[in-house]
Amino acid sequence: MLILTTTRLTDEIEQELIQEFDEIRFIFKENIEAADNHLEEADILLTFGSDIRREHIKKATKLKWIMVLSAGINQMPLGEIQERKILLTNVRGIHKTQMAEYALAMLLNYYQNLFTYYKRQQEKVWDKSIKRREITGRTLTVVGAGSIGSELARLSKAFHMKTIAVTNSGGERPYFDQVYQNDQIKEALEQADFIVSILPETEKTKGYYSKDHFKWMKQSAIFLNMGRGSAVTENVLLQALNDNEIEHAILDVTPIEPLPRESQLWSHEKVTLTPHISGGSEQYIPRAVALFRESLMEFLETSTVSINKINIDKGY
Amino acid sequence: MLILTTTRLTDEIEQELIQEFDEIRFIFKENIEAADNHLEEADILLTFGSDIRREHIKKATKLKWIMVLSAGINQMPLGEIQERKILLTNVRGIHKTQMAEYALAMLLNYYQNLFTYYKRQQEKVWDKSIKRREITGRTLTVVGAGSIGSELARLSKAFHMKTIAVTNSGGERPYFDQVYQNDQIKEALEQADFIVSILPETEKTKGYYSKDHFKWMKQSAIFLNMGRGSAVTENVLLQALNDNEIEHAILDVTPIEPLPRESQLWSHEKVTLTPHISGGSEQYIPRAVALFRESLMEFLETSTVSINKINIDKGY
Repeated sequence: MLILTTTRLTDEIEQELIQEFDEIRFIFKENIEAADNHLEEADILLTFGSDIRREHIKKATKLKWIMVLSAGINQMPLGEIQERKILLTNVRGIHKTQMAEYALAMLLNYYQNLFTYYKRQQEKVWDKSIKRREITGRTLTVVGAGSIGSELARLSKAFHMKTIAVTNSGGERPYFDQVYQNDQIKEALEQADFIVSILPETEKTKGYYSKDHFKWMKQSAIFLNMGRGSAVTENVLLQALNDNEIEHAILDVTPIEPLPRESQLWSHEKVTLTPHISGGSEQYIPRAVALFRESLMEFLETSTVSINKINIDKGY
Repeated sequence: MLILTTTRLTDEIEQELIQEFDEIRFIFKENIEAADNHLEEADILLTFGSDIRREHIKKATKLKWIMVLSAGINQMPLGEIQERKILLTNVRGIHKTQMAEYALAMLLNYYQNLFTYYKRQQEKVWDKSIKRREITGRTLTVVGAGSIGSELARLSKAFHMKTIAVTNSGGERPYFDQVYQNDQIKEALEQADFIVSILPETEKTKGYYSKDHFKWMKQSAIFLNMGRGSAVTENVLLQALNDNEIEHAILDVTPIEPLPRESQLWSHEKVTLTPHISGGSEQYIPRAVALFRESLMEFLETSTVSINKINIDKGY
């Protein structure tokens, strides 16, 4: 059996895998081009996914399982994978710690006005008049509440926040005080001081947020998007900000990435931007490999993987 | 009975007090100069404390109780107050929410490198290479762990941190995994990723941190001072930073405040400064008045106040 990677792990982790699974051949390559020659023999492919094209899948005739080292699969040749009945899994769940920290860091930073203090320090000005607010006791609405949303809600409860989830299916969710289905989103948005969007990109979530969604939000609301940038168009967002429908937007994701220099989002006074980094972590590869190990052991025993198995029809 | 204030509350709060305690006279003045004419008649003084001099106490011959609307009492004429056996209380405990939020905001901000992202946004540069770290799972040592330290430890436990307290008396403290006494501080500092100093200013805490304390800390340690600036001299701190004994200092308090323009702390690349604002909050006056109400009811019943009573010999 051959396991092929299209990304290098660390030397240490690669050696550990080789030793732990000594009956398996491993080939570690830095990208799909370098891995191309070995595709025909590969049983399992470990990849970040975005450079995998239909022709790679065609070539990999023995392929039984692809593990994607990210959460998004929207750039992959899903039709080909589904037709060939190749098992597809991802690393859903390993983003939760860093993304929950990101969201709280950004909300605290904005409410505490830390960029203004930073500018005053540069100017050597001791300015006690800068306004600060507390996040304690506010209301948080998470749109697209899965494992990341639950982790954010767990931390938000420590700050005595009211937590609201918007999901496809409704029902109870740990750490959420209220759960609304998508068609009840108005009530969920009206209450929120902070709206955190963690929607994946699917056909249903492209352009998810309309002008009305922003009208329903409080004028003092903070909209934080760390899901996918396609959930809201630049026009809808800019109009909401310019019409004072909400107070501020914090964007880790944008409709086009990297964000073009001519975008008004860069210099809009009501926008804080980061370059799609919320899911990254020093701990990313170790956590992903830990999940791969666990999945591989299941695969060796049962020839399938239940952990984070993707339903291609649903898109997640 | 006359209650005199040397600070204005809000109109709404003042009206509420007058109505609730209708047998008591209230005089609300904006500062000690404006209040001066009424000192002779005052039974109770409500003040931020820093403008109260010995002559004011001398003049206030009927004074039985001073409630200080801050935590620090080091600028007050304590000898005079003690001699006259005037009851002294403060608002210890109402700083905990905002100060715990401040500490977490600053630690998250530093570990997430948000000031660098801010600069990149100004430059319209999409830079995914900026390094970020997680606060989850780190070790926090709080020096001077009272109610603020406990609140910070409570939130830090939500981030799965190891929490260590350094106190005068040792013993168990809620939300702390370990408690060390002052003479065991070396062990507490050696383990810490984050050292948060919340020491009040007393004779014992002036210049509390020596060169050795910083040598004991990890080279990657973050030192955050939100207690009193006198706990560490500028020289000791600058030397520790310049000798790479620690990685970074976050200072809400400085030995001299406002920090003089010529101080090297302003532009030191390893220093983040805020102008002694961690204890402030929009909720400050409402929370302080709630505590005053409760204390006043006790005073009216028993002629004394047990809530936050200060032992002048100890200085807190």
